[in-house]
Amino acid sequence: MRVGYLQFDPVFGRREENLERLGRIARERARGVNLLVLPELAPTGYLFLSREEALSYGELFPGGPTERFLERLARELGASIVIGFAERSGERLFNSCALMRPDGSSSVYRKAHLFLDEKDWFDQGDTPFEPVRAEGTDIGLLICFDWYFPEVARVLAIGGAKILAHPSNLVLPHCPEAMRTRCLENRVFAVTANRTGSENRGGRSFSFIGQSQVVGPDGKVLARAPSNGVDVGIVEIDPADAERKDPTGRNDWMKDRRTDLFGKLLDR
Amino acid sequence: MRVGYLQFDPVFGRREENLERLGRIARERARGVNLLVLPELAPTGYLFLSREEALSYGELFPGGPTERFLERLARELGASIVIGFAERSGERLFNSCALMRPDGSSSVYRKAHLFLDEKDWFDQGDTPFEPVRAEGTDIGLLICFDWYFPEVARVLAIGGAKILAHPSNLVLPHCPEAMRTRCLENRVFAVTANRTGSENRGGRSFSFIGQSQVVGPDGKVLARAPSNGVDVGIVEIDPADAERKDPTGRNDWMKDRRTDLFGKLLDR
Repeated sequence: MRVGYLQFDPVFGRREENLERLGRIARERARGVNLLVLPELAPTGYLFLSREEALSYGELFPGGPTERFLERLARELGASIVIGFAERSGERLFNSCALMRPDGSSSVYRKAHLFLDEKDWFDQGDTPFEPVRAEGTDIGLLICFDWYFPEVARVLAIGGAKILAHPSNLVLPHCPEAMRTRCLENRVFAVTANRTGSENRGGRSFSFIGQSQVVGPDGKVLARAPSNGVDVGIVEIDPADAERKDPTGRNDWMKDRRTDLFGKLLDR
Repeated sequence: MRVGYLQFDPVFGRREENLERLGRIARERARGVNLLVLPELAPTGYLFLSREEALSYGELFPGGPTERFLERLARELGASIVIGFAERSGERLFNSCALMRPDGSSSVYRKAHLFLDEKDWFDQGDTPFEPVRAEGTDIGLLICFDWYFPEVARVLAIGGAKILAHPSNLVLPHCPEAMRTRCLENRVFAVTANRTGSENRGGRSFSFIGQSQVVGPDGKVLARAPSNGVDVGIVEIDPADAERKDPTGRNDWMKDRRTDLFGKLLDR
């Protein structure tokens, strides 16, 4: 199975242009991929000035331009594709991502842990952390800052996820190395697709760190993008490697968990 | 407050000699410390050949030679000291660590997650993951492989731990970098005291990776020992830095946890 990331630098507010560019890069550089992960909020960019502005970019899924774009691209590439976007649902707005399969079926995850001013723009996600099926395996969806909370990857791995698909707009430096710990402790693969470039709006500035990557269940970085520019990284993996939770023969990284000692304490 | 590690290479089975050497190094190089962490199984070494052999090195706490050593050293240095040792309790044997305060009072933690053949030598720990008080702050005790399970540091931090004291006998390469993630995700300090050298017994060989360290709540390595040899690293810290779970002003790393979405799933 071939999994990978597409890293790029969207222009704020230019959805049509950004999607067209994403499609062009994917068609040129991601042929043969089975699971391709694109960044968080890839169609619109990140730095909204208000909830009202963010709402104006919100789109239905299914039924919006990102869904139509994804459906066509997934069919054409014969691949499952994950992308982050602003999802409108009635008066609610979520920082969501969708996984689109080649057959046109899709799953949506709404970001649970909002970072900084995302709390002004979006509603907190309400999706249970359950893996979704695609490409014959189980995919765990999380978005950017969700990585910071070890419970997210843990719950997805306990639920059977073999690959974490992780659309991101990372600005802090920690995530690329920390995702190696997430993979190691759960023995799963992770594909983090980050964006690059910067946004300057309303007197504020955000720079995004790139370094999109694919990491294996042993914490090894299998592919990593530079800090700047467009990059597509695709790696051949065997999701079954994420089923072997006991590489030493004596320690099953999941079954050895002492839930008898710490289970209830985690609910506090 | 001054916290630090003492890294050294015990000789297997020579408890009296190892303790005497630990005391000498501590008196020479750790004056003025408030919390000093020594390695796992520091008095005896690691590579037991059988449970019977391990039991023969088991000692009562309080009441054994390591307790007497610790009591004297903690009083003399005016510091709290953490050390790993084989603890006998009736017919049970634990891979434990003790924290000894200058006033002679102590707390014991029994390792919950046994690594490889430790499962043949020791009983699984039964200590709840609750921080202990020392030096005016809250200390979380965990031993070596416990780091691998994110629940351990998480539960200790939720319980109020500001500093993780982490006696270790690390053989895998991952822990030093991964502890940065543990500190970052929980915004706590961690003092990992590892051993160095190798043991060759019964046709088996273990090499220990050193790299003892102190890490801050921002994931920064404040001191790190080399891979080999004796080292003492002491750092001035303010445990109050571990109380600020919200360095950005918008994200409290603890309160933002979506326990409503993942709480019960972690009990599985």
